[in-house]
Amino acid sequence: MNKGLFIVLEGPDGAGKSTVARLIADYLEKKGHSIEFSREPGGTPISEKIRDIILDCDHKEMADTTEALLYAASRAQHVAEKIRPLIESGKTVICERFYHSSLVYQGIGRKLGVEKIREINEFAIGGTYPDLVLFLDINPEVALKRKTDIDGGDRLENEHISFHMDVYKGYKEIIKISPEIKVVDASVDKEQVFKNVISELEKII
Amino acid sequence: MNKGLFIVLEGPDGAGKSTVARLIADYLEKKGHSIEFSREPGGTPISEKIRDIILDCDHKEMADTTEALLYAASRAQHVAEKIRPLIESGKTVICERFYHSSLVYQGIGRKLGVEKIREINEFAIGGTYPDLVLFLDINPEVALKRKTDIDGGDRLENEHISFHMDVYKGYKEIIKISPEIKVVDASVDKEQVFKNVISELEKII
Repeated sequence: MNKGLFIVLEGPDGAGKSTVARLIADYLEKKGHSIEFSREPGGTPISEKIRDIILDCDHKEMADTTEALLYAASRAQHVAEKIRPLIESGKTVICERFYHSSLVYQGIGRKLGVEKIREINEFAIGGTYPDLVLFLDINPEVALKRKTDIDGGDRLENEHISFHMDVYKGYKEIIKISPEIKVVDASVDKEQVFKNVISELEKII
Repeated sequence: MNKGLFIVLEGPDGAGKSTVARLIADYLEKKGHSIEFSREPGGTPISEKIRDIILDCDHKEMADTTEALLYAASRAQHVAEKIRPLIESGKTVICERFYHSSLVYQGIGRKLGVEKIREINEFAIGGTYPDLVLFLDINPEVALKRKTDIDGGDRLENEHISFHMDVYKGYKEIIKISPEIKVVDASVDKEQVFKNVISELEKII
C-alpha cells in the first residue's frame, strides 16, 4: 500500500482555504486519490476537548506557555489518531491549518519564539510532515471584504483589521524562514488561483 | 522583597513526601519563612481540568505525545499562575513532584526520550527551576508495605509491584544525569530522614 499525500492549506481568514481544499480534492480524485479533509484546531474528540479548554472564556488566567502546549497537545492527538493512520492507509489528507499557524500565533503573536514553538510542534507531529504546505496569499483587508460580502462574517473575522494585518505579517516572517511553504497568489480570480495551486501540486505527485 | 525558596520533593509512592513537606515547613517557619504547599499533577483549576482530560478513562486512544504535552501544559499553568507569583512575593513553596516526574514517567516509562521531555518542560517552566530537589530514596516494596500498613493503600499504590520497581529504576537513571537532584535515604527511621533532609536544606538557606 502506497502512502497517501498530506497537503496543508494556510492563509488569512477569507483566503479561500475551504474552496481550494475542495478544488484539490476534485483534481486528485480524478487521478484516483481517496481524499479525507481535516482542519485545526480540533480534528479528533480529544483534540476538541483540549480546544474547549483553550477557548473557555473563564480561563482568563491561562498562561501563553500553557496555551502553546495545549495547541501542540491537540495537534499531537490529531496526527496520531487521524492524520498518520489515514496517510499510512493510502488516503490523501487535506488539512486547513497545521503547525505553521502555531509558529505565527504563538511564536510571533504571543512572542514565545518561533524556534521554541517549532521544537514543541516537531515533538507533537513526530515526523509526520506535510508533503505540501500552500500559503494562500491575500491581503486580509481584501480577503475579509470578499468573505463578509458573502456571509456577513463571524465575530472573529470582524475583529479589528489590525489584528489580521499582524497575523498576515507574522505569516510573511514565517514564510521567509520556512522554505517548505509554497506561496500562491490568492488575490486573483478563482481560475487563476486554481492554476497556481495545481502547478504546485503537480510538483509532488 | 526577597524571593522565596522553591523546594521539590520527588520519590516513590509511600516514600513520605507529604510528611517530609510538613517537617520542612515546620523547620522553615521557625526561621521566619511563610510556606505554601502544592503538588502535581494539578495545582490550579486549569491544571486540574487538563489533568481530568489525561485521566479520563474514555480516552484510551490518547497518544503518548499528547499525554506528555498535556502534563507539560498543566505544569506551565501551575508555574505561571501559582508557583512563580508565590516565590516572587517572598513565599517559600514546597511542591510534591515536578518536572523530574515527567522525565521518569513520560521520558523513560513511555519511551519518549528524556532529553525531548526535558526540552518541553524547560519551555513549560520558563526558568522557574527549584532551588532544591530532594529525592526520597526508598525501595518501593518497603515504601508500599509501610504505607499499606497505615491506610490500606489506594488502587494505584496497590498496582503490581513491578510497575513501581520500573518507576524506581527510572528515577535512578534520571538521578544519574541530573546533578540538581539531592538523594536522601528514606528507608531509615523518621528522625534520621529528617536530619538528612535538613542537612540538604541548610546548604541552600
